[in-house]
Amino acid sequence: MSILAVGTIGIDTVETPFGRAEDVLGGSLSYFAVAASFFTQVNMVSVVGTDFPDQLWERLRRPGVDLRGVVVREGKTFRWAGRYDYDLNAVETLETQLNTFADFRPVLPDGYDRSRFVFLANGDPDIQFEVLQQVPGARLRVMDTMDYWIRNKPESLVRTIEQVDILLMNESEARMLVETPSLLSAAKKLLRLGPKAVIIKKGEYGAVMFTDFDYFAVPAYPLDEVRDPTGAGDSFAGGFLGYLAQSNRVNLDTIRRAVVMGTVVASFTVEDFSINRLEKVTPEEIRLRTEELREFTRFVLD
Amino acid sequence: MSILAVGTIGIDTVETPFGRAEDVLGGSLSYFAVAASFFTQVNMVSVVGTDFPDQLWERLRRPGVDLRGVVVREGKTFRWAGRYDYDLNAVETLETQLNTFADFRPVLPDGYDRSRFVFLANGDPDIQFEVLQQVPGARLRVMDTMDYWIRNKPESLVRTIEQVDILLMNESEARMLVETPSLLSAAKKLLRLGPKAVIIKKGEYGAVMFTDFDYFAVPAYPLDEVRDPTGAGDSFAGGFLGYLAQSNRVNLDTIRRAVVMGTVVASFTVEDFSINRLEKVTPEEIRLRTEELREFTRFVLD
Repeated sequence: MSILAVGTIGIDTVETPFGRAEDVLGGSLSYFAVAASFFTQVNMVSVVGTDFPDQLWERLRRPGVDLRGVVVREGKTFRWAGRYDYDLNAVETLETQLNTFADFRPVLPDGYDRSRFVFLANGDPDIQFEVLQQVPGARLRVMDTMDYWIRNKPESLVRTIEQVDILLMNESEARMLVETPSLLSAAKKLLRLGPKAVIIKKGEYGAVMFTDFDYFAVPAYPLDEVRDPTGAGDSFAGGFLGYLAQSNRVNLDTIRRAVVMGTVVASFTVEDFSINRLEKVTPEEIRLRTEELREFTRFVLD
Repeated sequence: MSILAVGTIGIDTVETPFGRAEDVLGGSLSYFAVAASFFTQVNMVSVVGTDFPDQLWERLRRPGVDLRGVVVREGKTFRWAGRYDYDLNAVETLETQLNTFADFRPVLPDGYDRSRFVFLANGDPDIQFEVLQQVPGARLRVMDTMDYWIRNKPESLVRTIEQVDILLMNESEARMLVETPSLLSAAKKLLRLGPKAVIIKKGEYGAVMFTDFDYFAVPAYPLDEVRDPTGAGDSFAGGFLGYLAQSNRVNLDTIRRAVVMGTVVASFTVEDFSINRLEKVTPEEIRLRTEELREFTRFVLD
């Protein structure tokens, strides 16, 4: 099954202790789409400005990615700049320019509304909400968000969370949204808002999933070197939902497996800047790391 | 098989956002011994001052704990005071008084040197080293340490690390000792010092184990409320080595299982101050959480 996905396509400038990348492909939807395209077709919904360069368009033109829903508007593309210190779990945002994304009103091209799997990548929760209204027949609605929206549009954000099946957040943002230091208690509060599952991304510490009756934890794939964590969460989401949409089954076993796929796909993203490593991943590499992760976590009791 | 264990027995004062405990039982060896005593006999080697109160002696008198190696010296008992903020992963040490522990020279009572499993709890690395000299027939030597000794006796510490089979450290301390931000690279450097396995404790993020040919990760047992993380690492070590000594087998499968036991035992410790929760744990409670942890981490691939 295909995925309908809305979010930002952006131009990023990123600095880490291991290098600097200027004006590279970024945005929550870009990472998501590339990651999910290993598993299924992604119908992208977004906007870029007339300044969006050809070479970045080229990176998005991939098998499994439908760009008909990406509109070009007079003006500048969404831009983000950030810096990471040696603690790669914490980012310092230097600049967020919404630009053409600020007054983006998503309109779905013909056929997009038949997608049964919907992903609302990190972005304006009002836009996320509008997209949901246009796909009433969705079978699985998944969303991500970040601190920017918790601070700037908390009510819109909660309204959207109430409408989705699975909520992805990173750890500190989950605690921030419901103002609860214990992660377990925070997750329970988030579940009470409506989602059937809450997945908390913890960066180098992996991810955990909470449902009313299940708890699942998976460590990150261990890496010698992380060059740039940008897009890790978005590509986690891509691997996660890509796998679910491909298997077209949604039960606890497939969801756990999907969390593992998300973890593995994200591990490639952070090995280099932008989608430099991610776009080159092969199915064989994904399979290998998935099997390794199973070995890394397996234990038997007496 | 019994365990020979050396480390501090102390009087702690601890503050967390959830309360305060004054002059309670503390010290790396106290937590270790109580935790390990669920699995096997522990022969304790330590020192206290003449001020060590009767009610704290009472807490240590447990089935499976041999106190003959705990000497009483004129003077004051080792004391530690610390404070935790809402981020329970970071402690602020307010005071460390070595007191009688400062010039402690361990002497093993008759029979102690027959212990085949040796644990060097966090403490002076020179004392740790001296103990090792007295048990040349040890089958498995395990040690823990902390930032205090990395800063104050780095050379003694490395000399002791070179002599042990398994090294336990927490995450930031492992990075600090070998001055390496990547945990995987840091662990490889630590393995090169001599230990056959390095186990990194990550607090609420669980634990990982590195050997030359194996990597194992287990998440922490999820808790609604953590009241006091003091002693989590020491009781992790107690569950870990207690289980290994009880099973009297040391292979990758039992070591992985031992890491799980350590994780589970530590989860009880942090539910209350001092050993208040830990000392009441039942074998049935340990078994239950161990099985839950297996469920929490299990996934099957296609």
